[in-house]
Amino acid sequence: MKQDNRLRNDCFAMPRGVSWTPVDKAIEQLKRGLSNIKGTEVVSTTDGMGRILASSVCALSSNPPYTNSAVDGYGFCGPTKTQVSKLKVIPGVAAAGAPFVGKIPKGSALRILTGAVLPEGVDTVLLEEDIDQIDNFSITFEVFLNTGANTRKSGEDVLKGEQIFAKGHKLRPQDLALLVATGNLTLNVFCHLKVGIFSTGNELLDAHTTSFEQLEFSRIFDSNRPMLLSLIANWGFEVFDFGIINDDVNATRDSLNKASKSVDAIITSGGASAGDEDYVSRLIKSEGQLENWRIAIKPGRPLALGLWKGIPIFGLPGNPVAALVCSLIFVKPSLGLLAGCNWIKPQSYLVPSGFDKEKKIGRREYLRARLLADGDAEIFPSEGSGRISSLSWSTGLLELMDNEDKISKGDMVKYIPYSSF
Amino acid sequence: MKQDNRLRNDCFAMPRGVSWTPVDKAIEQLKRGLSNIKGTEVVSTTDGMGRILASSVCALSSNPPYTNSAVDGYGFCGPTKTQVSKLKVIPGVAAAGAPFVGKIPKGSALRILTGAVLPEGVDTVLLEEDIDQIDNFSITFEVFLNTGANTRKSGEDVLKGEQIFAKGHKLRPQDLALLVATGNLTLNVFCHLKVGIFSTGNELLDAHTTSFEQLEFSRIFDSNRPMLLSLIANWGFEVFDFGIINDDVNATRDSLNKASKSVDAIITSGGASAGDEDYVSRLIKSEGQLENWRIAIKPGRPLALGLWKGIPIFGLPGNPVAALVCSLIFVKPSLGLLAGCNWIKPQSYLVPSGFDKEKKIGRREYLRARLLADGDAEIFPSEGSGRISSLSWSTGLLELMDNEDKISKGDMVKYIPYSSF
Repeated sequence: MKQDNRLRNDCFAMPRGVSWTPVDKAIEQLKRGLSNIKGTEVVSTTDGMGRILASSVCALSSNPPYTNSAVDGYGFCGPTKTQVSKLKVIPGVAAAGAPFVGKIPKGSALRILTGAVLPEGVDTVLLEEDIDQIDNFSITFEVFLNTGANTRKSGEDVLKGEQIFAKGHKLRPQDLALLVATGNLTLNVFCHLKVGIFSTGNELLDAHTTSFEQLEFSRIFDSNRPMLLSLIANWGFEVFDFGIINDDVNATRDSLNKASKSVDAIITSGGASAGDEDYVSRLIKSEGQLENWRIAIKPGRPLALGLWKGIPIFGLPGNPVAALVCSLIFVKPSLGLLAGCNWIKPQSYLVPSGFDKEKKIGRREYLRARLLADGDAEIFPSEGSGRISSLSWSTGLLELMDNEDKISKGDMVKYIPYSSF
Repeated sequence: MKQDNRLRNDCFAMPRGVSWTPVDKAIEQLKRGLSNIKGTEVVSTTDGMGRILASSVCALSSNPPYTNSAVDGYGFCGPTKTQVSKLKVIPGVAAAGAPFVGKIPKGSALRILTGAVLPEGVDTVLLEEDIDQIDNFSITFEVFLNTGANTRKSGEDVLKGEQIFAKGHKLRPQDLALLVATGNLTLNVFCHLKVGIFSTGNELLDAHTTSFEQLEFSRIFDSNRPMLLSLIANWGFEVFDFGIINDDVNATRDSLNKASKSVDAIITSGGASAGDEDYVSRLIKSEGQLENWRIAIKPGRPLALGLWKGIPIFGLPGNPVAALVCSLIFVKPSLGLLAGCNWIKPQSYLVPSGFDKEKKIGRREYLRARLLADGDAEIFPSEGSGRISSLSWSTGLLELMDNEDKISKGDMVKYIPYSSF
C-alpha cells in the first residue's frame, strides 16, 4: 500500500525569538513536526526482524493451542486423593505431533511425552521421576497431584483474539516467536525507510576508494560517513551512500535532487553551520526550506533541519563526536517517527559518578562515559569534540540535565549505554 | 588466511560427580573449552561494522593529522598581550582542503575557516564573533588569546603509532570513524562465524512454508527457529537455516552431517533432554561426543553440548523461554569465543525491585522484567517457561544470584537489558 503522507513545509520551524533552544524543546518540535511517511507491505513473519508493525496484531490461535503435557510421564484423570495411588497402564503412548486416539478410562494411565495433546479422559500428568513402581500393567506412586498438574492449559499464555502487539512496535527476535506461536505467519508492516547519507567538504577523501598513500597534506579521510552508514543501517533503516560532495553549489544541488528522488530522508554532515563554506545550508535555505537550530547542547549545537522537494534533511555538524551525539539524540527517534514508530526515548540508568565536574547551567551535556568494575561512571579526560578516540573509548553517554551545575563524586548520574539507542 | 584451530573432544566435559552445575561453573567450563576456530581475512574498514579484529590496530597517522583551525575566524601569531589588538589583514583565505600558500608575517592575520591547516606563521585563531571592528585592511578585537587558542593540534587525539584497538574487539560504528581518521582503511578481521540452526520435533510446522489453515490439531508452529535465526544474525554471525528435523535417527544424522560440512557451529532446539523422543541427544551421544549439562538455572536446566565431526553443537531446550535465556547466557558468549572475541559479560545495572519474591537457594534465576517509569523493575506475573508472551512483554532479565533466597520491594536487583546481549 502506498501512502502520501507528506511533511508540512514548516515541520522544523522553531517558535520565533528563541536563541538557544533547550534539548527538550527541540525534541518537542521534532515530535510535533514529523510523522510516518511510509506505505505498508505484507511480509512473512519469519522475515519480520526489525520491521515496524503497521497495524496492531491479535492472536489467531491460543498459545498453547491445546492443553498438553509439560513433562514426560503418565497421563490420567486427577486428582489423586489417597496417599498411595496405583493406576492401570493402557498400552500405547501420546507424543508431541502423534496424539493418542482413544479414551483413557478412570483409574488408568497412558504414557505421555512433553508437548503431547492430553488424550480424552486425561487431565493430569504424573512426572516420570515420581513413579515408585512400574511394570507392564501398572504404576504406583506416592505424590499428591491436583487436577491439571504438569499440564499446560490451552490459552494459558495467550487467548485467541487477544491483542499481542500495538501498531508501531518494532519487532525483536522473541516477538517473532510469539507471532508464530499465535498463528500470525504474515504481517502488515511499514515499508523500509530509505535514508541517504552524504558528507560535504573539499578536504575529505573517500576511505573506501582511496589508499593511505593518497592522503595529502591538508586533507583528511571522511570518517563520518562510514560511521553514519553503519549506525543507521544498524538501526534497521535502508541506507544509501551518496558519497562526498565538494563545496560547490551545483554539485550539492545535483546530489540533493538525485537523493530526493530515491530516499525518504537525507543525512548530511559538515556544512551545516553558517560559515563561508557552508554551501549546503545556504543552498537549502535559498531553494528549499531550512531551519538552523542552535541547540543548548554540548557537544552538538548547530543542527540544520530542512526539506528539499518535500524530503526531510538532517544536517549534522562535521565533527564526528557532535555528529554521533546529535544522531543518537535527535536523528534516530526522528527517523523512527518517519518510519512508523512512536518517539523512542533511550533507556537510561542511574549510576554513581566517579568524578567531580562543574557545568554551565542552561545547557544539556552528553559526556562520553564508561562504567568501571564497581559500577561507577568514568568520563573521558578531554571533552574536545575532535576527540574521535573518546567515542571508541566509551560505552555510552552521561546525560547532564540543563539545570545541573555541579556533579560530585558519588552523585547519581544518568547513563545511557550506546546499546540503548 | 585459514587456520586449523580444532576444539578438543572433551571441550564440554564437566568434572565428574557434579549433579547440578552452577551457572558460573558452566561458564568457566565454556571459557576453558572453547576458543577461536576461524581464519582471518582483510576487509575495507568501511565494510567493517560488527567484524572482530584479528590483530591489534595502531594509528597509521595522527588524529588530527595536522594542526588546524577549530573555528571560522582569523589566524595570526599569538599570544595577544595588550587589551586591544589590531592586526593587518592579508588578502586570501585558508580553507579546509584548500591550504594557504605563503607565510603570514607577525602582526598580520589571515581569514581561516574550520578545518583549514594553519598557514606558516599562524599558531592562534581569533573567533569570528570576537571581532570588534573589521575593514578590508585590518581587524580590531579585545579578547586575550593564548598561543594555540581555537586550534586543534596535530595528534591531540591520537598519535601516529599509538595502539587504538586490541585484537578481539568487535567493531561499532564509531570505531570505524576512529580507524578511518587514523588512516586504517583496511583491516585484518576474523572470517564470519557460520552458525547452522535447526529445530526438532514431529509436532512442528514450518512458519515460513505453512499457512495458518494448515495448522492441525496436535501440531504447533515452530517458533524457536525464527527467533534464533534473527537473534543470532543480529549478534553478527552468519546464520544457516537447516529447517525442522523430524524425530528420526537417520534424518537427524543426515542433517548433522550436512551442517557439519558447511557451518562452524550448530544450534538445535528441542530433543536436548533425556526423554524417549530425544533422538538428537541419543544420536550425538552414540556417534559423536555429548555432554548433558544439568545447570542450576531457571528457566533452562538441560543443555546438551556436543561435537559432531569436530563441530560444536549447542542443544537448547525446546521451550522458547528457556531457549532464549540459555542462548543469551551461554550460547552468545560461546559463539563469540569461537568467532575470535573474548568472553563478553553482558552489562547489568542495579535497579530497585518493585516486587517481593522468595527463591530457592543454590539456583540462578532469570526473571523476565521491564522497568517502570520510576525505574523500579517489574516482573512478569507468571514464571512458567511456556509463557512466550513474557518474552515480548519484557525488555530484559533480572539475574537473581545462586545464594539469594528472598527479594523484597526496594532491594537493589541486577537488571540485564536484552540490548546488553
